[in-house]
Amino acid sequence: MTDFSLWLSQAPKALDKTAAAAALARQSQLTKPAGSLGKLESLAVQLAAMQGQAPQAEQVHITVYAADHGVMAENISAYPQSVTAAMIRNFASGGAAISVLAKQLNASLDVINVGTVAALETINGVQDQRIASGTANFHQHPAMSEADCYQAMQIGKANVDYCQQKSTQLYIAGDMGIGNTTAASAMACAMLQLPAEQLAGPGTGLNAQGIAHKARIIREALQLHQAQLDSPLSILRYLGGFEIAAMVGSYLQCAKLGLPVMVDGFISSVAALCAEQICPGSRDWFLFSHHSAEPGHTTILQALEAQPILALEMRLGEASGAAVAVPLMRMACALHNQMATFEQAAIAGAIS
Amino acid sequence: MTDFSLWLSQAPKALDKTAAAAALARQSQLTKPAGSLGKLESLAVQLAAMQGQAPQAEQVHITVYAADHGVMAENISAYPQSVTAAMIRNFASGGAAISVLAKQLNASLDVINVGTVAALETINGVQDQRIASGTANFHQHPAMSEADCYQAMQIGKANVDYCQQKSTQLYIAGDMGIGNTTAASAMACAMLQLPAEQLAGPGTGLNAQGIAHKARIIREALQLHQAQLDSPLSILRYLGGFEIAAMVGSYLQCAKLGLPVMVDGFISSVAALCAEQICPGSRDWFLFSHHSAEPGHTTILQALEAQPILALEMRLGEASGAAVAVPLMRMACALHNQMATFEQAAIAGAIS
Repeated sequence: MTDFSLWLSQAPKALDKTAAAAALARQSQLTKPAGSLGKLESLAVQLAAMQGQAPQAEQVHITVYAADHGVMAENISAYPQSVTAAMIRNFASGGAAISVLAKQLNASLDVINVGTVAALETINGVQDQRIASGTANFHQHPAMSEADCYQAMQIGKANVDYCQQKSTQLYIAGDMGIGNTTAASAMACAMLQLPAEQLAGPGTGLNAQGIAHKARIIREALQLHQAQLDSPLSILRYLGGFEIAAMVGSYLQCAKLGLPVMVDGFISSVAALCAEQICPGSRDWFLFSHHSAEPGHTTILQALEAQPILALEMRLGEASGAAVAVPLMRMACALHNQMATFEQAAIAGAIS
Repeated sequence: MTDFSLWLSQAPKALDKTAAAAALARQSQLTKPAGSLGKLESLAVQLAAMQGQAPQAEQVHITVYAADHGVMAENISAYPQSVTAAMIRNFASGGAAISVLAKQLNASLDVINVGTVAALETINGVQDQRIASGTANFHQHPAMSEADCYQAMQIGKANVDYCQQKSTQLYIAGDMGIGNTTAASAMACAMLQLPAEQLAGPGTGLNAQGIAHKARIIREALQLHQAQLDSPLSILRYLGGFEIAAMVGSYLQCAKLGLPVMVDGFISSVAALCAEQICPGSRDWFLFSHHSAEPGHTTILQALEAQPILALEMRLGEASGAAVAVPLMRMACALHNQMATFEQAAIAGAIS
């Protein structure tokens, strides 16, 4: 067994059932009608089960993985490929949505170029870990070689190792890659054995004709690679992207180390589903931030039995939805840790 | 005309259409696919229209109005009346949900006793503006005299005047009053001409039998006062509560002065509906934070054509849902004000 397959076969960390029970008991003693804080109660209990202690979401780390997609040759996006590189510069200079949100949250932000088409100039704030000149066009070839796919996953794994060392309490991965809803939709079709029409959506802004064309490209790719789409790892390699593989690697490592993940939108949820299929039980470590406006997200969330915190009709990617959910996690933690119990507030006497 | 009726007849401030158009134009220039930030875009534009400038939600003020309800004599709550006073003490000592949330948001918090059954000791952090020993039992009498109802409304008005002076950017009112879902449900039935069964719900935790009893009490009260329930002001006086009247007064004054309101849950939404019926157009100044788990909330939200930001199954009151929505407003503002435009990020070139 190689180190890589040893790593893959390592089971996710188990949740702390004792901490979960203690958190649940505490919730029932806080000065409010039972259950009246709704999802804020269950989120606090869930995080306590992951962290094995009073839940905390102050130390948040966000990594945006960016890469280009060979399937762009098939004209499947409303935006040109050059936007990937332009947005990488925008992340670094502070003008992108996730840059603004990370600052607002006082969260650390990594931007990792795992495979733009062209090499970029040195950019302050961007890690150049470019694996190749984008993926191959999966309509005609495997998107990635096995070695390149594993390298992308290991970049994600290493990023989580770094976060674990600096005591991150909540990990967020985001994606940037023009064309990547096509790759993610294709992966989801293969993982869930669903037709392309059910998962192809507008992405950054295709019209109905564009969506139909995107679905046809996906359908044909699924036919071409049919014999090889027999495992989640192979599905990732044949249909995915470098940034998606990096996210899968990071999610797997979070589950193995026991670092809570806040999953973003459509692309991220497909990566989460891939991680869960590669290493069942990983999903225990995933919190789901929002229901994306990308229609296929509903199907992915159902497959993961996920009920996201927010539904704000967002569909931007780059970790933006996950970032927006962070203050709610922090409030859930503050309420859990700081509210008085009935006994402390002497309300038990008022009730009995 | 008295000063009070002059005040009531004063029209709400008009929204700033120029600022709204400018905000909408700016949203279309920010570095993201059009519409991809979903409701965070429309919230920023809405707030810009209210504030007449770049939207801001840093200076947040929260006031919790607390009072007791005579209809408690009819056994319509899962909690005893003494909890109102106990929770007032809990707000002041920092152990209640809204105390924790206000601290988390760095928001100022007022707690105003507008009518507990018994006078309370002097409590640091609680304003004693007690009008009477709770309302009368509206199953047998009008809940309030005209003078007392107007006094409660003026307490709310004065609180908003104070907030306006200290440059509050977002105003939140919350309620505490054991029994007040019964009062609010009765008011909503009268304002919307709906049967009691449609609006009576579990409140802090009634079972099916308790809800049926609560509906019967409301139905009988509506019959008793039928002839007097001919205006929203009269409905408030006959069926409402001191804390609800104070909220109505505060919401009316926010609309008249042009101070944006974040509305909380069921009780608050009934107060918002009452304010809108008293002074049409007030609703323009209301943002709706969350969809409460109290079933009747759906009907009230529909009547106000409101689509709340969050749906977290919360049902606590005391402004907690509105507080939880504040970070999302702040993020909407930060994104609106701080993201780069396509031109700034030189992405226009990448697209064309």
